[in-house]
Amino acid sequence: MLETSYTLSEIAKLLGAKLQGNPECKINGIAALDRAQEGQISFLSNAQLRSHLATTQASAIILAPKEAEFYSKNALIMDNPYLGYAKVAALFQPKLTAKSGVHKTAVVGDHCQIASSASIGANVVIGDRVVIGEKTIVGHGCVIADDTTIGIDCCLWPRVAIYPGVHIANRVLIHSGVVIGSDGFGMANDNGVWQKIPQLGSVDIGDDVEIGANTTIDRGALDNTVIEQGVKLDNQIQIAHNVHIGAHTAIAACTAIAGSTKIGKYCMIGGGASIVGHIEIVDKVILVGTAVVEKSITEPGVYGSGTGILPFRELKKSIIRFRQLDDIAHRLQKLEKAKQ
Amino acid sequence: MLETSYTLSEIAKLLGAKLQGNPECKINGIAALDRAQEGQISFLSNAQLRSHLATTQASAIILAPKEAEFYSKNALIMDNPYLGYAKVAALFQPKLTAKSGVHKTAVVGDHCQIASSASIGANVVIGDRVVIGEKTIVGHGCVIADDTTIGIDCCLWPRVAIYPGVHIANRVLIHSGVVIGSDGFGMANDNGVWQKIPQLGSVDIGDDVEIGANTTIDRGALDNTVIEQGVKLDNQIQIAHNVHIGAHTAIAACTAIAGSTKIGKYCMIGGGASIVGHIEIVDKVILVGTAVVEKSITEPGVYGSGTGILPFRELKKSIIRFRQLDDIAHRLQKLEKAKQ
Amino acid sequence: MLETSYTLSEIAKLLGAKLQGNPECKINGIAALDRAQEGQISFLSNAQLRSHLATTQASAIILAPKEAEFYSKNALIMDNPYLGYAKVAALFQPKLTAKSGVHKTAVVGDHCQIASSASIGANVVIGDRVVIGEKTIVGHGCVIADDTTIGIDCCLWPRVAIYPGVHIANRVLIHSGVVIGSDGFGMANDNGVWQKIPQLGSVDIGDDVEIGANTTIDRGALDNTVIEQGVKLDNQIQIAHNVHIGAHTAIAACTAIAGSTKIGKYCMIGGGASIVGHIEIVDKVILVGTAVVEKSITEPGVYGSGTGILPFRELKKSIIRFRQLDDIAHRLQKLEKAKQ
Repeated sequence: MLETSYTLSEIAKLLGAKLQGNPECKINGIAALDRAQEGQISFLSNAQLRSHLATTQASAIILAPKEAEFYSKNALIMDNPYLGYAKVAALFQPKLTAKSGVHKTAVVGDHCQIASSASIGANVVIGDRVVIGEKTIVGHGCVIADDTTIGIDCCLWPRVAIYPGVHIANRVLIHSGVVIGSDGFGMANDNGVWQKIPQLGSVDIGDDVEIGANTTIDRGALDNTVIEQGVKLDNQIQIAHNVHIGAHTAIAACTAIAGSTKIGKYCMIGGGASIVGHIEIVDKVILVGTAVVEKSITEPGVYGSGTGILPFRELKKSIIRFRQLDDIAHRLQKLEKAKQ
Repeated sequence: MLETSYTLSEIAKLLGAKLQGNPECKINGIAALDRAQEGQISFLSNAQLRSHLATTQASAIILAPKEAEFYSKNALIMDNPYLGYAKVAALFQPKLTAKSGVHKTAVVGDHCQIASSASIGANVVIGDRVVIGEKTIVGHGCVIADDTTIGIDCCLWPRVAIYPGVHIANRVLIHSGVVIGSDGFGMANDNGVWQKIPQLGSVDIGDDVEIGANTTIDRGALDNTVIEQGVKLDNQIQIAHNVHIGAHTAIAACTAIAGSTKIGKYCMIGGGASIVGHIEIVDKVILVGTAVVEKSITEPGVYGSGTGILPFRELKKSIIRFRQLDDIAHRLQKLEKAKQ
Repeated sequence: MLETSYTLSEIAKLLGAKLQGNPECKINGIAALDRAQEGQISFLSNAQLRSHLATTQASAIILAPKEAEFYSKNALIMDNPYLGYAKVAALFQPKLTAKSGVHKTAVVGDHCQIASSASIGANVVIGDRVVIGEKTIVGHGCVIADDTTIGIDCCLWPRVAIYPGVHIANRVLIHSGVVIGSDGFGMANDNGVWQKIPQLGSVDIGDDVEIGANTTIDRGALDNTVIEQGVKLDNQIQIAHNVHIGAHTAIAACTAIAGSTKIGKYCMIGGGASIVGHIEIVDKVILVGTAVVEKSITEPGVYGSGTGILPFRELKKSIIRFRQLDDIAHRLQKLEKAKQ
């Protein structure tokens, strides 16, 4: 493998960063401050790691103006060093190698439009009337059902399953094990026996969405489930039917969102959150991990739930008292009144 | 595509509903009250949407007798309009098109009995001695291991994995990514090192069960894991070894049930619930979403857990006090005694 | 199928147990005390089941010395009967039948080293430069990307997806639907828009690890995600980038561990636990199911979270009071002061 290398001045240009030190310094990789070797660049985005600056072997550091005051070696100075890290890491990322064309073991249905620069992997199965855009990669073993449309520059890792009629826009990244378009959980009760409600809607995925491994997104009951542009979903997230997620919202792993809930734009939702159905969360809400949202959130802000972690012996006592809380509050009130 | 259409009197007959208005009115689809176009039928099952009746463009409405008093246009009147919706939606559901027969890319083992009307999709792998009933559809890329039996009229969406010796009854619907029959999590501790306990049981799935995307159901340790008839499981549910779920119980997404727990019939379990192992929950229990059940539930009723959602700043204060709850209760008691 | 059978003395030898009764007694299976038939062996590891000893039909029982005092029939006596059960169950486990060699429908890339005794199933796709060790079984429909190494005696059940460059040691058991090496959830915020941080690390899985169905393990951002030897992971667990799990730790289903967290050796983590990122948990910590760990745990012990299960009517009252807890504590303090 040929080593990729860049000069510090090339990287400065890419980042729009101010260069300090030797512009010809060769950079061939990126690593954390305490792991970096000569030839690698590193970054300081967390002030708690500042002490590593004194000992790091990195050949250059990306850092913020206020940190640069105390650092005299090679550096790229910019307001958001973490963004700098993201951009430099992209330089050193191995290219996904996928030959354009349809692998001979793939099975493709009738009336499909598959762009000539798209890559359809081994053992892929594609239904009828499927559209796949330029440079999109469909990984090995994916199954894409009838009438689905996938835009340009998308990447489906192996073993993704897409149900019929799903619409996926451009530059969407979908990880292995993802299921999109499965039936929403809709049933009517007929004297104790559940009657399935056919799910006639579909799923719309916007531009630049990322969907983590084994995440599931159900199709809508009548209208569509909608994931707007720029949304980032981590692994093992469950999106129920008719959920609507606003643009540029990021959701960490194992969060579950129940049916017909609408989440705003620019929200950040911690891992393992549970959001009940038929509510609305406004823009720019931050949910701490494992938050349980049982009603609409109408004001931006940071929200959470739970008791924190306790030694189990103490927890058992607190659990008993939690159940008595209303009684405790009333008794306190009584004492207060008596005192008056 | 030919448009499917029905007269209102045909639909009334199907639903057993009382017809009000024009029996010849043509219906070609179903939509929500506020989205319906001319030619579509809608329904009112949630009193909060009653105001939409005045403005809806729907050509007919399914509604309950008490709502019909105030509605004079085309209507189908029945006690459970939501059930009416389920049945009408089924009329307009696209038919799953699956050719009977075994796709040429499928790999089928020895001594299998695959019904002639069954459909085995592309790249399916079927082991030895597998039985698949009439009209059952096995989606593309499914893997069905040795000695598994699947009844009639079942539908496995693409990429389902079934381990050896599983028994699936009739009209079972299984979504993509489901795994049935994986090993239960059984280990014996041998001086700190875990020794695997082979899982010798299997899984029994009853008639009319639905299993959501990426749900996992483990095989039993010695006896079988059992899902009784009519049970409905949403996405990403985890059913551990030797769990027994009673008939017609519905479980929402991301619920986890630990080993050997027995859940009754006609229960409704909200999303994200966690149920500890080796307990019993009686019939007709309702668990609110994210309920954490750490002991048996012996009385029908509605149960839940948790603290609700709070602004994070307040949550942090409450978490500190939660840990002091037993102390708070004792101090309150002391004050009460002093007052006497 | 030939029936496998062993004499009681053969089994005693295997277990290193003391034999009581007839050494020639034939044993052809294992079952729970209340289900065992003649010819089967059973075990008593839970004192609550002691009463079954009087009525069991089992031909022999594995039990602890203190229980054996009251049991006079055929028995194998050892300190850890549950471990005895694990070992005897292994005797009666059906052998996984997998022909060595590469199935004709498998697609294998260039420069791979696949051991001659390995078994590569139907429709498997293997990338370039992949190494697969002796006697390892790769189940049907698995996809293994470029540059991945898998050791000897591993078993991948069908439909596992491994991303590029993952390292899996020996005797690793991976269940269906598992994804290893997917991108960690790393993003830098660029004026509201998320920029992906390429995940340049990989995943190291140690010897004797077991990974349950549909579990996901992300690759590291710069360094590797590490699962040390003997770790046992149940189903639907989420391991984020750069997590490090110490040897012989067992984690039950649906637990999620956020990025860069380090978990010690010999820990036991109950189902549905949520562990925040960038913390450390020392060796030998036990987390009760659904524990939410939001800070480092520095002392071994048993920890948990939550409110327990309540009737929903009571829960709603307690939730209101939980939010008032800090106020309640202050008011109590005031009363205490007034009394002094």
